[in-house]
Amino acid sequence: MKTTQLTAEILRKKSFLCVGLDVDMDKVPSAFRNSPTALVDFSKAIIDATVDYAVAYKPNLAFFETYGVEGMAALKEVIDYLNAKHPEIFTIADAKRGDIGNTSTRYAKAYFETLGFDSITVAPYMGKDSVEPFLAFKNKHTILLALTSNPGSNDFQRLETNGKPLFQSVLETAKTWEGSDQLMYVVGATRADALTDIRKIVPDAFLLVPGVGAQGGSLAEVATYGLNKEVGLLVNSSRGIIYASQEEDFANAARRAAKAMQEEMALLLAQNNLI
Amino acid sequence: MKTTQLTAEILRKKSFLCVGLDVDMDKVPSAFRNSPTALVDFSKAIIDATVDYAVAYKPNLAFFETYGVEGMAALKEVIDYLNAKHPEIFTIADAKRGDIGNTSTRYAKAYFETLGFDSITVAPYMGKDSVEPFLAFKNKHTILLALTSNPGSNDFQRLETNGKPLFQSVLETAKTWEGSDQLMYVVGATRADALTDIRKIVPDAFLLVPGVGAQGGSLAEVATYGLNKEVGLLVNSSRGIIYASQEEDFANAARRAAKAMQEEMALLLAQNNLI
Repeated sequence: MKTTQLTAEILRKKSFLCVGLDVDMDKVPSAFRNSPTALVDFSKAIIDATVDYAVAYKPNLAFFETYGVEGMAALKEVIDYLNAKHPEIFTIADAKRGDIGNTSTRYAKAYFETLGFDSITVAPYMGKDSVEPFLAFKNKHTILLALTSNPGSNDFQRLETNGKPLFQSVLETAKTWEGSDQLMYVVGATRADALTDIRKIVPDAFLLVPGVGAQGGSLAEVATYGLNKEVGLLVNSSRGIIYASQEEDFANAARRAAKAMQEEMALLLAQNNLI
Repeated sequence: MKTTQLTAEILRKKSFLCVGLDVDMDKVPSAFRNSPTALVDFSKAIIDATVDYAVAYKPNLAFFETYGVEGMAALKEVIDYLNAKHPEIFTIADAKRGDIGNTSTRYAKAYFETLGFDSITVAPYMGKDSVEPFLAFKNKHTILLALTSNPGSNDFQRLETNGKPLFQSVLETAKTWEGSDQLMYVVGATRADALTDIRKIVPDAFLLVPGVGAQGGSLAEVATYGLNKEVGLLVNSSRGIIYASQEEDFANAARRAAKAMQEEMALLLAQNNLI
């Protein structure tokens, strides 16, 4: 998918919502708990309930890998369902991969080709030759970790390097890499104060923003400092939507939660003259 | 497995060799290329051929994930084979994972429990709360990327932070984390000059050293600067062993290559009064 298609879908739905599929079997409604197909069934039910209000879905790989071979088979079913039923949806493999050249190429093939995701999250620690192999895949996107929303982001990401925090060095260096027009960046919403600096470095890139809701970030702040002329934002919500209710009404509750976010996003898009 | 058991096995075999299973279907002998079970068959053949001279095996997850569900099933077969037939072998999931708290716990369960590896490689970028969940698993080991052997390691790992390169900050910070006695560190052999500094910070930890052989690192240099009183080293070789020959004699060639490394290691262990 091209970013222009993603932007068009955002404007059509008046939403830049990404739903995170962090499907925790301990938290799904009890009806699912003893089913061997619960990972797939719950994911599909959440997709069906929320797809009118979301433009992207982000399966969290850990929650599939933890079930081994069956988990990977479930992931394949979920992505196949998204690609077949909702080809307009932008799909993100939240995998946080990254390794030396030929190994990164294998990861890219795994997620872009074998599974058919539009994008994958990648960690920057190993540098240029660990990320560029992902960027060689046309119309696929690599979402590089810049500033994450967890407390541990202070350990290294904010260390001063050349007079600026490491995450800024990551952004400045990454934008010089071959194929950098296919880069997007993870920026935690709990760091809305940093968004202004980040937008100076990467004015045109899409930012994937986790941390709104359960982790305490403010959607209005993220929009104020993060929106650009092509929207340029995907805001992720996982727990706030998929576990809006853990009872039988989980699908309706998820739909209501997604709709509430979409409505707030529509207002913010209008306030910023984007719709 | 406890590190004391790993050290005992190193002293028994007079080897600190780890064989990297980066099984590339384009490079395996032609007899394997069209077989649906080639990943497993080739891996088992390499293990059988080299296990007299190696103390650890390191499947590279990308080369399995690239085949999707079948690849994960193959990985499961390989690790089950190692655990059943060679329980004395230290197993490393070369996965380079890392994510926020509950997600890292799922990755840890995937590799330590569902698959049964002794250890996993983890990227440090997201900090403390992305690594500590792995350290909560007793007798399991987390091998943190410190200084890697690829050119891109210069992009961020060597940036100056607080008057020292980032990788030194990573080591100094990581050793303060809860459960840090279960940490090991990746240090590329192409950086043998940095080993002296690293040993000052983590004198007792095991170091996993890739980059000897194909990437140009020197085993003698790594031993000189990296060995500690409990050996404290695992040196990985992938291509130099598993593709020593790409013809029918691949198993014998792999065995000879592993034996040659073991013999050099035995000499280095003796020179350092460890055996």
